[in-house]
Amino acid sequence: MKSREIRLKSRPVGMTKTTDFETAEVDLGAPAAGQVLVRNRWMSVDPYMRGRMYDRPSYVPPFQIGEALQGGAIGEVVESADGGFAPGDLVSSMLGWREDFIAPASALEKLPVSLGSGGVPPQAYLGVMGMPGLTAYAGLLEIGQPKPGETVFVSGGAGAVGSLVAQIAKLKGCTVVASAGSDAKCEWLKSAGVDHAINYKHGNLLDQVRSAAPKGIDVYFDNVGGEHLEVAIELARTNARLVECGMIGSYNAAEPTPGPRNMIMIVGKSLTLRGFIVFNFAHLRPQFLTDMGGWLAAGQIRVEETVMDGLDKAPDAFLALFSGGNTGKMLVKL
Amino acid sequence: MKSREIRLKSRPVGMTKTTDFETAEVDLGAPAAGQVLVRNRWMSVDPYMRGRMYDRPSYVPPFQIGEALQGGAIGEVVESADGGFAPGDLVSSMLGWREDFIAPASALEKLPVSLGSGGVPPQAYLGVMGMPGLTAYAGLLEIGQPKPGETVFVSGGAGAVGSLVAQIAKLKGCTVVASAGSDAKCEWLKSAGVDHAINYKHGNLLDQVRSAAPKGIDVYFDNVGGEHLEVAIELARTNARLVECGMIGSYNAAEPTPGPRNMIMIVGKSLTLRGFIVFNFAHLRPQFLTDMGGWLAAGQIRVEETVMDGLDKAPDAFLALFSGGNTGKMLVKL
Repeated sequence: MKSREIRLKSRPVGMTKTTDFETAEVDLGAPAAGQVLVRNRWMSVDPYMRGRMYDRPSYVPPFQIGEALQGGAIGEVVESADGGFAPGDLVSSMLGWREDFIAPASALEKLPVSLGSGGVPPQAYLGVMGMPGLTAYAGLLEIGQPKPGETVFVSGGAGAVGSLVAQIAKLKGCTVVASAGSDAKCEWLKSAGVDHAINYKHGNLLDQVRSAAPKGIDVYFDNVGGEHLEVAIELARTNARLVECGMIGSYNAAEPTPGPRNMIMIVGKSLTLRGFIVFNFAHLRPQFLTDMGGWLAAGQIRVEETVMDGLDKAPDAFLALFSGGNTGKMLVKL
Repeated sequence: MKSREIRLKSRPVGMTKTTDFETAEVDLGAPAAGQVLVRNRWMSVDPYMRGRMYDRPSYVPPFQIGEALQGGAIGEVVESADGGFAPGDLVSSMLGWREDFIAPASALEKLPVSLGSGGVPPQAYLGVMGMPGLTAYAGLLEIGQPKPGETVFVSGGAGAVGSLVAQIAKLKGCTVVASAGSDAKCEWLKSAGVDHAINYKHGNLLDQVRSAAPKGIDVYFDNVGGEHLEVAIELARTNARLVECGMIGSYNAAEPTPGPRNMIMIVGKSLTLRGFIVFNFAHLRPQFLTDMGGWLAAGQIRVEETVMDGLDKAPDAFLALFSGGNTGKMLVKL
């Protein structure tokens, strides 16, 4: 059978463009013994994928030009030549950016939900119950170590990760300051219980955060880097923890961007900046699924999605991550 | 009786100048009950004192214009109206920058050595057995957590702290790369057992450190900030620890200096940057004194001092810290 996939056509220079991608048709054949034919229903686009478009050593190998991109996806088994999977099973894989694919059973993980079963929808396993959820959970709780009554500042607060960080911090008894790039996103953050939502495009960021957190910041969860990180260092209290999850502001920079001008405060205020990759916190996944599943069932976490339709929209969905086009998890429905 | 002291005349703007200091004569009177008259024999000048010349909140209150500066000093008791001290006792205090002073006994700590007794000389309690020694010990071992076989990079390697970091790291079985600002300092570092001594004023720092540490850096002990920190981030291995002890390169900057251009690597390489203040590691002092005393007695640590003579030289000694004028601990002999 035929499928379609999105390939990397050229390595982006500066801001990624839709012309850096191309769509190709591929002939899949039929699954051999131990293989499974899957039709993707949902695929994820995530900011970290930008890093894989550079040709450089990293914690994941770079995407190759002329080859299909990869990323989290939720699909439905169409045909199985493996005893562990049957048609209709919902599976998670890293084989997004394509409509159908054949893969060994070892590349698939069966979801504990089925289509139309109610409860947690399948695409939640790309967001709140998936990698972004575990990123928020592990980064905030393990690295940030927030204590009740402390102040947590999160940038990219309306994003897939940030929106969960903000809400988990509230569940842990913290005062939460979150920044986002539009008034609509700030309204959403307020509706999700965040104490102070700041539109960083309006007025001086330092002044706004200082006014929201007059006693300073105990935990900063960094999704954007740049000015936000400088502001967080400036307002950090002694012994504050700065969780370095991402710096989306620099992912498409053609030239290296200077770091914060107040690095010296790391010494005087005994700050800890710690970067992390969610893959290194896989051991927390069972606890995360239990906790997050419970919070969702109890209505304690609000989930927002931005959905684009069809494989051809995948490049647009990816690009929109860098222009603030999503509230909550950005998904492509296939 | 009369004494002399150095006062802050004006808050330095940009590089500190000798005209920012003034010498004054003071009348001490005689010690009241519970007080002690001390004649300082040695005083310390340390880079952190520059921070106290700014009028801003910090972990120690700012120096006040028109008042005597403060800092570590070793003195001899001349007259005592407190039962705990007798003439001839050697005492440590934070009342440097003056020749004689009267203070309550609570401001003094009796040293376990006496003048002319051999063994550890009194001024060692301003250096290897004092605050810089504990800084090196606590920062490297508690924050850096070096393991045998790992590579430790230390900047300001020939300074009071750096020279001890380099040697403690060798004692812990690490490969040590140290940077300094002259060939003479590099020679001294080699003579102290450092594996690779780099003159940062000769050639490209990144290339030099990469060549000395081809497998990358596990621990970076930062005394200087700036380009050194950027190089350390660039060459850091996954999970490396960056000990932020000081950033002497920016202490006299009139304008904020931009941070490293490769901050994003903190995320991808799961780096930890942690700043610290030695005062928060006072609980390690007994163990430090035991360990360091043992290493000194066994000839396993080489100690270097740069000494200037007389109170009037104190401003020059302080300024020389920022132009590389010292190898090892900078001291003023009174």
